[in-house]
Amino acid sequence: MAYFDNAATTYPKPECVYQYMDKFYRECGGNAGRGNYEQAKSAGELIANTRSMIQDLLHCPTKQVVFEPTATIALNLIIQGNIERGAHNIYVSPFEHNAVTRVLHHFEKQEKIVVRQLTVGENLRYDMERIRYQFEEEKPDFVIVSHASNSFGVVALLEDIFALAKKYGARTLADMSQTAGLIDTNVGLETFDYAVFAGHKTLYGPTGISGFVMNPEADFPAVLFGGTGFESANQDMPESLPQKYEAGTLNIAGVAGLYAAIKWINETGLGIIWEKEQEHRAKLMEILSGYDFIHVVGADKDVPYVGIVSCLIDGISSDSAGNIFDEQGISVRTGLECAPLAHQFMNTYPAGTIRFSVSYFTSDKDFKELRRALDYIEDNL
Amino acid sequence: MAYFDNAATTYPKPECVYQYMDKFYRECGGNAGRGNYEQAKSAGELIANTRSMIQDLLHCPTKQVVFEPTATIALNLIIQGNIERGAHNIYVSPFEHNAVTRVLHHFEKQEKIVVRQLTVGENLRYDMERIRYQFEEEKPDFVIVSHASNSFGVVALLEDIFALAKKYGARTLADMSQTAGLIDTNVGLETFDYAVFAGHKTLYGPTGISGFVMNPEADFPAVLFGGTGFESANQDMPESLPQKYEAGTLNIAGVAGLYAAIKWINETGLGIIWEKEQEHRAKLMEILSGYDFIHVVGADKDVPYVGIVSCLIDGISSDSAGNIFDEQGISVRTGLECAPLAHQFMNTYPAGTIRFSVSYFTSDKDFKELRRALDYIEDNL
Repeated sequence: MAYFDNAATTYPKPECVYQYMDKFYRECGGNAGRGNYEQAKSAGELIANTRSMIQDLLHCPTKQVVFEPTATIALNLIIQGNIERGAHNIYVSPFEHNAVTRVLHHFEKQEKIVVRQLTVGENLRYDMERIRYQFEEEKPDFVIVSHASNSFGVVALLEDIFALAKKYGARTLADMSQTAGLIDTNVGLETFDYAVFAGHKTLYGPTGISGFVMNPEADFPAVLFGGTGFESANQDMPESLPQKYEAGTLNIAGVAGLYAAIKWINETGLGIIWEKEQEHRAKLMEILSGYDFIHVVGADKDVPYVGIVSCLIDGISSDSAGNIFDEQGISVRTGLECAPLAHQFMNTYPAGTIRFSVSYFTSDKDFKELRRALDYIEDNL
Repeated sequence: MAYFDNAATTYPKPECVYQYMDKFYRECGGNAGRGNYEQAKSAGELIANTRSMIQDLLHCPTKQVVFEPTATIALNLIIQGNIERGAHNIYVSPFEHNAVTRVLHHFEKQEKIVVRQLTVGENLRYDMERIRYQFEEEKPDFVIVSHASNSFGVVALLEDIFALAKKYGARTLADMSQTAGLIDTNVGLETFDYAVFAGHKTLYGPTGISGFVMNPEADFPAVLFGGTGFESANQDMPESLPQKYEAGTLNIAGVAGLYAAIKWINETGLGIIWEKEQEHRAKLMEILSGYDFIHVVGADKDVPYVGIVSCLIDGISSDSAGNIFDEQGISVRTGLECAPLAHQFMNTYPAGTIRFSVSYFTSDKDFKELRRALDYIEDNL
């Protein structure tokens, strides 16, 4: 199996992630933050250290790190909480995932919010003049931008958009599910209110541990309620961070894996990982462009891309192509990849695309297998 | 370290849980239900098999198994969804955890619901006559019962309470966080609408994977929204189960651990595990009763108990006692254990108790260490 579905989850993980998860969970499987004894304390230390490593990685020492089981839950809490707090005019990029758009749709149906798309040109650049005009027309309360499209890999210039949004007093949310740990980003800027990370994607950690960093001033009402091992007598959620948004038992095995993963990123160098993934993307593009029946979608503009490439194959639906690749031992993702609005924007809706995604670990063997499979498809079309 | 905090999380886990988690995640770390390729399919098979093992374990072949990252999230979805659907008169046991009571408190403050406590007598038995009278006075819409108190271990007779609740047309929710996989329970009864399980407690699985089983007729609105890898074009959550309540990437390493854990329960025998834990509880009670300065709370009634024992120590606050036990290498939980209402009911509020909790794996060495620590406290009080 040659793995080209790293945008779903990076695979394999660094060896140290598997090892440390197993070792820590065996030796310190006590319940973090829920006891006062030695083992619970070392779990507590691991959690504190992992928070501070995330602050370092994202250059945001004064922001609060909040753990959630998934980026989807993190996005739900932030978006639902801000809508409850009164956010009404919400702007989103055209590339949002269903973890954003389905949440918004729920409140749009109830007429609690109005959702508008930020203008992106055919060159896939954000049209700052038009966006300024949009903001003048309808003042933004909340601006949500996917840092990199999970379908097409195109990277947004977060800093510019958020700086503009802040001039109009909006709160800002970056969905960094496809970029945290991969694109060096100064989340410490005052213009970033929230940035969501997915532990099991570009952070190379395990599933089950994700979260967000937040400007502590950009508080919002809790959406999920429960035990925090803290102020137990209080029937309201504690107002203190991160407890207010961390009800329930933390996935300590997951945190251990994430800790090892970020340590690996630091040791390897985020810049080196980025370059390696860019090399792998270039190699992927080179291979795909060698076949006339393959048409890469939206990957030829003068903007940055992460290692995600979407394409179409002449005469074969993306779903059938998925089956063929599967038979040929190539793992790809096909269809709308949970981002139907991005496909509407790129005119690949409703059939979707065939998505290839690479990581630091994509190997020569993977690429060789991909060539072999594409040769087979070419010969048998 | 002698571990007496199994009610927070069982520790250690069966060896096969560590091994299988590591092996499966290394070999099949592809993203479950999000791709069509071989590796994603074997993750998909693991998930399907684990669902069906939970159905078998809880005797509910026609109920739907839904995975959530934590029991807290499972409880939030069910309770918030049912309140949105119109549940107004809500009855709870006196033993609910903050994962239930804090959710209810949030909606009580908004005057959307009225919460009443089911009558439990001094013998810790549910007073069915009084409860019938309560239901006559104010018809129940929703009845929530913690199967076993996480603070005092006392087990509720779910079947009787739910049968009565159903006569009044209420929906029923069992919080089985402290009992799933330990107390043989026929969740297949029509009177059970929802039963929540915590993977990392009595199921002996890892943190980060929990969920609920539900009567498929007892549908409720989704509370969290996002990608399901399914009907991606639909901006509403799919109505199909379990997708409607499973937005976001499943913790596949966690599911692998839970699979191995339930397999271990089946091979060991749930009845054997129960008996062993009861033996350990008896041993714990015997040890504690040997010291005059220790007063066990609410553990002497003619009702079943799981392996949880709460006590007080003469002249020492529960928090100080926690520190002393920690210095002596004994892990216990002290205070309100996220269940302040249970402590109000048992008259141990607000200081709380010192909670010891055993598991199948509590060893002679653990008990020996406990005796040594108690002797030390006796000599140095």
